[in-house]
Amino acid sequence: MSTSPHHTSDPAHDVLRDARAPLNAFFNPKTVAVIGATDKANSAGRTALWNLVSHPFGGMVFPINPHRTSVLGIKTYPTAATVPEPIDLAVIATPAATVPKIVSECADIGVKGAIILSAGFRETGPEGTERENQILAEARRGKLRIIGPNCLGVISPLSGLNASFALTSAVAGGALLSPMPRPGSVAFISQSGALCTAILDWSFRQNVGFSAFVSIGSMLDVGWGDLIDFLGDDPRTKSIVVYMESIGDAGAFLSAAREVALTKPIILIKAGRTAAGARAAASHTGALCGSDEVLDAALRRCGVLRVYHLAHLFYMAELLGKQPRPRGPRLTVVTNAGGPGVLATDTLIAEGGQLAKLAPESLDKLEKVLPMAWSHGNPVDILGDATPERYTAALQIVAEDANSDGILLMLTPQAMSEPMHTAELIKKCVAQGLPEKPILASWMGGDEVQAGANILNQANIPTFPYPDTAVRLFNYMWQYSCNLDSLYETPSLPGADTGNAPDRGAVRRIIEAARRASRTLLTEFESKQLIAAYGIPTVATHAAMTVDEAVSVAEEMGYPVVLKLLSHTITHKSDVGGVQLNLNDAAAVQKAYCRIQREVSERYSAQDFHGVTVQPMLKLDGYELIVGSSLDSQFGPVLLLEPVASWSKYSEIKPWDYRRSPPLWRGA
Amino acid sequence: MSTSPHHTSDPAHDVLRDARAPLNAFFNPKTVAVIGATDKANSAGRTALWNLVSHPFGGMVFPINPHRTSVLGIKTYPTAATVPEPIDLAVIATPAATVPKIVSECADIGVKGAIILSAGFRETGPEGTERENQILAEARRGKLRIIGPNCLGVISPLSGLNASFALTSAVAGGALLSPMPRPGSVAFISQSGALCTAILDWSFRQNVGFSAFVSIGSMLDVGWGDLIDFLGDDPRTKSIVVYMESIGDAGAFLSAAREVALTKPIILIKAGRTAAGARAAASHTGALCGSDEVLDAALRRCGVLRVYHLAHLFYMAELLGKQPRPRGPRLTVVTNAGGPGVLATDTLIAEGGQLAKLAPESLDKLEKVLPMAWSHGNPVDILGDATPERYTAALQIVAEDANSDGILLMLTPQAMSEPMHTAELIKKCVAQGLPEKPILASWMGGDEVQAGANILNQANIPTFPYPDTAVRLFNYMWQYSCNLDSLYETPSLPGADTGNAPDRGAVRRIIEAARRASRTLLTEFESKQLIAAYGIPTVATHAAMTVDEAVSVAEEMGYPVVLKLLSHTITHKSDVGGVQLNLNDAAAVQKAYCRIQREVSERYSAQDFHGVTVQPMLKLDGYELIVGSSLDSQFGPVLLLEPVASWSKYSEIKPWDYRRSPPLWRGA
Repeated sequence: MSTSPHHTSDPAHDVLRDARAPLNAFFNPKTVAVIGATDKANSAGRTALWNLVSHPFGGMVFPINPHRTSVLGIKTYPTAATVPEPIDLAVIATPAATVPKIVSECADIGVKGAIILSAGFRETGPEGTERENQILAEARRGKLRIIGPNCLGVISPLSGLNASFALTSAVAGGALLSPMPRPGSVAFISQSGALCTAILDWSFRQNVGFSAFVSIGSMLDVGWGDLIDFLGDDPRTKSIVVYMESIGDAGAFLSAAREVALTKPIILIKAGRTAAGARAAASHTGALCGSDEVLDAALRRCGVLRVYHLAHLFYMAELLGKQPRPRGPRLTVVTNAGGPGVLATDTLIAEGGQLAKLAPESLDKLEKVLPMAWSHGNPVDILGDATPERYTAALQIVAEDANSDGILLMLTPQAMSEPMHTAELIKKCVAQGLPEKPILASWMGGDEVQAGANILNQANIPTFPYPDTAVRLFNYMWQYSCNLDSLYETPSLPGADTGNAPDRGAVRRIIEAARRASRTLLTEFESKQLIAAYGIPTVATHAAMTVDEAVSVAEEMGYPVVLKLLSHTITHKSDVGGVQLNLNDAAAVQKAYCRIQREVSERYSAQDFHGVTVQPMLKLDGYELIVGSSLDSQFGPVLLLEPVASWSKYSEIKPWDYRRSPPLWRGA
Repeated sequence: MSTSPHHTSDPAHDVLRDARAPLNAFFNPKTVAVIGATDKANSAGRTALWNLVSHPFGGMVFPINPHRTSVLGIKTYPTAATVPEPIDLAVIATPAATVPKIVSECADIGVKGAIILSAGFRETGPEGTERENQILAEARRGKLRIIGPNCLGVISPLSGLNASFALTSAVAGGALLSPMPRPGSVAFISQSGALCTAILDWSFRQNVGFSAFVSIGSMLDVGWGDLIDFLGDDPRTKSIVVYMESIGDAGAFLSAAREVALTKPIILIKAGRTAAGARAAASHTGALCGSDEVLDAALRRCGVLRVYHLAHLFYMAELLGKQPRPRGPRLTVVTNAGGPGVLATDTLIAEGGQLAKLAPESLDKLEKVLPMAWSHGNPVDILGDATPERYTAALQIVAEDANSDGILLMLTPQAMSEPMHTAELIKKCVAQGLPEKPILASWMGGDEVQAGANILNQANIPTFPYPDTAVRLFNYMWQYSCNLDSLYETPSLPGADTGNAPDRGAVRRIIEAARRASRTLLTEFESKQLIAAYGIPTVATHAAMTVDEAVSVAEEMGYPVVLKLLSHTITHKSDVGGVQLNLNDAAAVQKAYCRIQREVSERYSAQDFHGVTVQPMLKLDGYELIVGSSLDSQFGPVLLLEPVASWSKYSEIKPWDYRRSPPLWRGA
């Protein structure tokens, strides 16, 4: 084998070698080596080569195979190093055991990116993991970035590059069909190769176009963060759609997403959100899943829109690419059919949206253009005999109403409907300029209705066959807006405004005292001292080690008081009668003290009793909160802050209240 | 105008005149009069006539119009009475004011059914309501049944009858297109005419067939109960699909549904489910038990499957028509793609379904036919290179596993997939006979995959583009099974097994005492006596009218005790400090008594204090239940029985637990 030849200097080529060059090489390479290229039917090495030569991407392809002089009629080279051009991208399809050496050679000759299609790494056991470690070390040495292993590859419809071994399902007469998605503005990153091929096929039928199509594989090197960063900067990508099985480097994902989400929507579906799903995912990829609630909170906090149905993933990508975001949850429905309008309203309300309360001026104007029998409110029922002109008159009025954050136009086929003409007029009306708010449509019915829907779709008004689908997507839109708003919400530090900084010294003393006593639990008393040190108000709580002390504290505090067990070992106080409420005098305090002491001594031991705390008996109308923390396997330390649903607040705190906690229906 | 001619006796005709004749006349008439038939373009009278003559239904049509000799070239009669044949069905399309007289004439000559297309009745005010009253009186006099008014009409694809003024949306060159849905086994009853036309158009595109298509209108006479009864007896109807806006005669609906649901599925979508909830927020108990929850409970209790999306309405009708019902919620997933399998699992679990735990023998058998790398569990991942033969081998094994209640077959297009051949083999495998359990499929991808999906659909294996859709429908299926099971659950009467019959005399005495005092509220004490009279255990509760009495009751009972306000006027005791817990001695009881008396006197008046009840202080691990009742505007008296989510049971009672309460996600 010869050593690398001297490389010619090509200025156009050098453009790639800027700061982002490493990832750019995956999407816009001038030279691609297919290492492991072969003629063998159904092999990844053959398909990858075939896909590259089937579509012009403005560069050159070099098959690498030491045992052949040509593959698919193209001259081969024994190694990447013997290719007479600098290689931007290597596509590796050789057996796993050979990959570390190949990556090392690639690093030697300055290859910028490698896509490892091969499987046989961490998912197979320790030997595979060791191979991955070697690969990563070699890649880092040479500044070589890696996508995969165990991935389907990368397709860049805008440059015409298909560096993957994806095939369309059609295999006609033995001839392979190499797919090239329609060019478009959606970047799709998938952790499932199978889903990639399904979406690819589906996109041809639905006329969905992509700016990038990445099968991310095991994320040995390039992960979510890198790709989101890169695609965030790519002006041709308008939205990023993610199918995720594991988050990998959570920090990198979150910081990239947090930045990119401000300028383009990131829409994500996560497989394995239920425990059973997570187990299934673990057996599938070997990836560990953390708590789904934690992921959910993190996604909302960084402005990512999470969906729960595959259909919604792409609907939302399309929608957010075509329509402005609503400022709030208030929708106006314009319909020629009452019943479907009610169904739309049901879905809107059930998922937290609102019907816009139209301004009196709007009602007046509608009164003038609509027949007497119109609904006189929202949904704006413009009646079964609505003409195209009636649709646009109503649209113009509600679009200008500041109380409305978005509009749903519904049509069912009735005697006067003229779905195509209506669509044409709406298109013209929108083209002439309306106040910026999202317009969605739901046109239900057969072929002519469908023809009208196509006109709207082409005019960038996304149109859906069912009104409830359209409404659910509107709900997603404003929730996405809420997520983005929260990106700008910076929690203030306690005391930052009052000058009362946290008393970190006190905190340190409490923690150290517990550590010295080899305790991992703080008592209630210590916990409250700690919370108070951060400037958070707490109930006055005084420790008392004797009956007399308890009484004297209570007397000073004023009755009624509460006595609670003080113990370094027993955490569930009420289980041992360790919470005595409503003590109204010294006698009651004495009795309560003795009772707690006796109960603990009898059921545990005298050593578990360290006295009591005395607190005033409070009746508050505020929220009861649970504060907790845990170590999440994906995100590390996690804080939980949650209102307790007590009986008296039953009707106030609903689990599906979107702003307070992740709504349950999002799982549906 | 002449009087009715003498009617010829036609034995075939007389078949109609059996017990069910009145409704049969709507679907299978021999003679139809169109009253208000006209040539006027776009009129209901013209379209109704046109629709009847456009399709052969094996009978005769008589246009009725006193001002014309013919309409659409057909000889007219001035009144129905002048028609020389007995009329089975009258289709009435005249102005509202004329309808009472026309109905009266129809009743006179023994017409069996009338469809009133006209609007202008109760929706227009008292005059319209009065018209309805007259119509109903005339109809009852003549045993004439009425569908409508304000409806689109009736279509019976199996007999070829289109007695409606529905049009397809296509109006080509001025020629009206009269729709005739494909004949099939789904009966659709809709309270929205607009939805009818939309569904009609949609059904042509989706190849969905109907046994009946009824626009039910204002339900002046024929309501849900009548139609469900009738269609339940109709052997050609396999499932009944209902779009409901109001339930009308709830009792008739429930008793018909309860009977029919045992033999054929009734699938229902209800518009306006949230509006009721908003109104109900007014009162405290109303907020807990809005009328939609009542409807929901009633539907489950009578075996009706309620869905929340239009798409699901027809998917479910098709599904339950094609596949057996699962015995339980345990699904087995067979897939050639891990990721989508995980998504399917997520949806399954999130909505209350379960992954079947395959029997060891099944795992052994799978081990023998699948490659080493298969998932070794459920989802059964048969890997990306799965051949058609591998699919059927796996299918056969899991179909025979008694731990599995249903099967989802998933396919994504990959190198070896052969979607069409796979579908053919599956079809053959199913045709050869498998243990009876539902099989659903999800085939994701482009044209060739779609061709495979079509093969499965034709083989009665419903196939969906998204796996999560298929899984949600499976969840609906077993929930429907649960609903049916509950039809057989008869609650036992208290005391029926022990011979301790309720003490109805005691109940009567309590109620009568309250009535004599003109009270509509029972005190806590009385309520508990009443509950006890029915054999339900209660906390020992003794009334005490003086301090001394309270102390002596407490002494006898043993400490600690609870004192609660006894008042005929104040219902929210704790708001006035009327609940004093943990009283440990006589002094505490005395104090508590005085405090309650003082608080009530200060904040209300001395007259509102009628003493206290003394009860032992209990700590129980059972469920806390709320029992309530309200008068529902649709259903009448309603009982509420609901567990209280208290903090300690926070993790036990989940609002989405299907068997305990309607899961929230069903609203999503």
